[in-house]
This record gives sequence, C-alpha cells and structure tokens, in this order.
Amino acid sequence: MLAALDLFAEQGYDATTVAEIAAKAGLTKSTFFRHFADKREVLVAGQETLSRLLSEGIEAAPADAKPLDAVAAGLRRVSDAMTPFNREIGPRLHAAVAANRELQERSALKSVGMAEAMAEALRGRGTGDVPAQLAAELGVLAFKIGYGQWSDPAHDSDPGELATYALAALDELRAASAELR
Amino acid sequence: MLAALDLFAEQGYDATTVAEIAAKAGLTKSTFFRHFADKREVLVAGQETLSRLLSEGIEAAPADAKPLDAVAAGLRRVSDAMTPFNREIGPRLHAAVAANRELQERSALKSVGMAEAMAEALRGRGTGDVPAQLAAELGVLAFKIGYGQWSDPAHDSDPGELATYALAALDELRAASAELR
Repeated sequence: MLAALDLFAEQGYDATTVAEIAAKAGLTKSTFFRHFADKREVLVAGQETLSRLLSEGIEAAPADAKPLDAVAAGLRRVSDAMTPFNREIGPRLHAAVAANRELQERSALKSVGMAEAMAEALRGRGTGDVPAQLAAELGVLAFKIGYGQWSDPAHDSDPGELATYALAALDELRAASAELR
Repeated sequence: MLAALDLFAEQGYDATTVAEIAAKAGLTKSTFFRHFADKREVLVAGQETLSRLLSEGIEAAPADAKPLDAVAAGLRRVSDAMTPFNREIGPRLHAAVAANRELQERSALKSVGMAEAMAEALRGRGTGDVPAQLAAELGVLAFKIGYGQWSDPAHDSDPGELATYALAALDELRAASAELR
C-alpha cells in the first residue's frame, strides 16, 4: 500500500489517519477497512503469506536435503511470489519502520514469526531443535540482507529475482559460519 | 518487579493498572513512577543493561579471539551480573509475554536490540559485517536457550550460573552450524 507508506514517511505514522490513507489511495474508508483492520495492518499484510511460503518451500525440499538447502528452497518459493510491487515498497517500508518505535516492535515480531515458521517446518523434516532454530535464523538474515539489496533503489536496471540476492546472502552466511569457530 | 509480573499473569497485562502494581509491591504510585515511566517499562527495565554487558564482554575479549569466543565472553559478562532475582522472574516474564501481543512485540524488539549491540561490538573488533550479524544471532539464541534452562522452575536445587547453560547452548549451536551444510 504505497499511499500509506508515503504518508507515514512524510508526516509520521502516528499523525497519519486512515481517512488520509484512503483518500491518497483513491479508496473509500469502507473499502480500506474491507482490506485492513487498521492502519497497522497495512504494514503487516503479507506477513502470514511470507511465513507460509517459507514453510511450504522447506516442506517441499527433497527429504535428504540438508537444513540450509531446505531453507534455500523456502527462500526460492518466496522469491517466486514476489512482484515489482514488493520490491518498490521495500525502501518506503524501511523508512516508515526506522522512524517509528511501534512499527519497529511490529517488524521485530514479524522476524520472530518468520524464524518460528521456518524452524517448525525444519523440525517437521526431522531436523533437531537447535539446528532448526539456527538454520531458521540464517534464513531470516539471508532474507533481510537479500531483500535489502534487491529492493535497493540504486539499481539502475531490472535487478532480477530476489532469490539471486537471498541465496547469495545465505551462501555468505554458510561460509561465515565456518569462520566463526 | 515480581508484583507486576504476577498481576500480568493473573489478570492480564491490559487489565492491570499501575495503582494495582504499586499496591501489590508496597510502593506509592509516585515511588513507582520514580523507577518506571509506565507499566511497560517494568518489562524492559534491564534491557539496556543487558546489551551493554554483552558489548563490554565482547570488547574486552582478547584481540585474537574468534567471533564466537568473543560472544562467549559477552555471555559470561552477563552471567556474572545475574542475581537470583533475574532467575526467579524468568518463568513469570515468559508467561506474561506469551499472553500478550503488545509484550511479544516489545520482547521481539529486545532480541533485535541485543543482536544489534553484539554485532556492533564485533564489527568494532574487525569482524566482517555478515559474520558479525551471524555470531550475534547465535549469541541471542544461546542467551535465550540458556536463560530458559537456568530459570526453569523445575530445578530442585541451586542451578548454578547462567553461563553454564548459555555457553553449553553456544557450543551446541557451534556444533550444529557444522551440520547444516
């Protein structure tokens, strides 16, 4: 919902009303409320979808895939569902969240939700609890790093797929995990 | 603040007033407000201290210590500052947070803050950005797992130091990171 994100960035999240968001988006208030329970919802819409796609990708990975390869399959599944819209909102979402404590808390909970969904899917494949939590955290980091790079407005041409960036980040984390010890 | 946590657990966070917390703790409202800005503060008091101790421990680790060994030093520093009070509030804090979405968001942001503090301290030692983020996430996981075990009310005798549990969890994560690939 670009209109809302622009308003949040311009005048702050707290100062922005649903009426303003609806007007800027060319919607009536009742149409707005048919899609979102409140203005906070604008920022979390898609969160359940994200967790579901990550889980589905992990569950569909070959039974003998290593945990991080299953996580990679989850990231690929998410990437396939991403549109130019998802890329375009990245920097605006980032700016809105950076400016508001309440949204930071919401965003942090979103990360925790993604990690839990991935860990649960991995445990469902027989991965032990600690390795599952670890692989899930690596998946969240890879998604965040990859999404930040993919949605970076500095790209002067089509940046291609999110998966390219997220999987490169996962590989970097994989390599880094060998150097920590 | 055990009185507050008990009230949150008994009657819910939203339904609990500052006046009730103060009364249960044997404090006047003005004394309460000298220590906490609002009731939410009760749950985050100590958060900055935690991040500071983790950072200090990491910074004080030998210059040639590997990132995860520096993280271990941070966990040891935190452990040294923990009291029986910190252990006792664990399960109550957990119950209060589990029951309230707002507190879940606050708690998630706390984890993010701890991870950022540790990553920053590691970058200050020359650790690259990605390995620093990774080592910091492992540190947060080790703290959470270790704290959960240490504060488990099922212990029928003195559970000893938090460090014993947190460092064992870090070792388990270290070992698990080798099996993910």
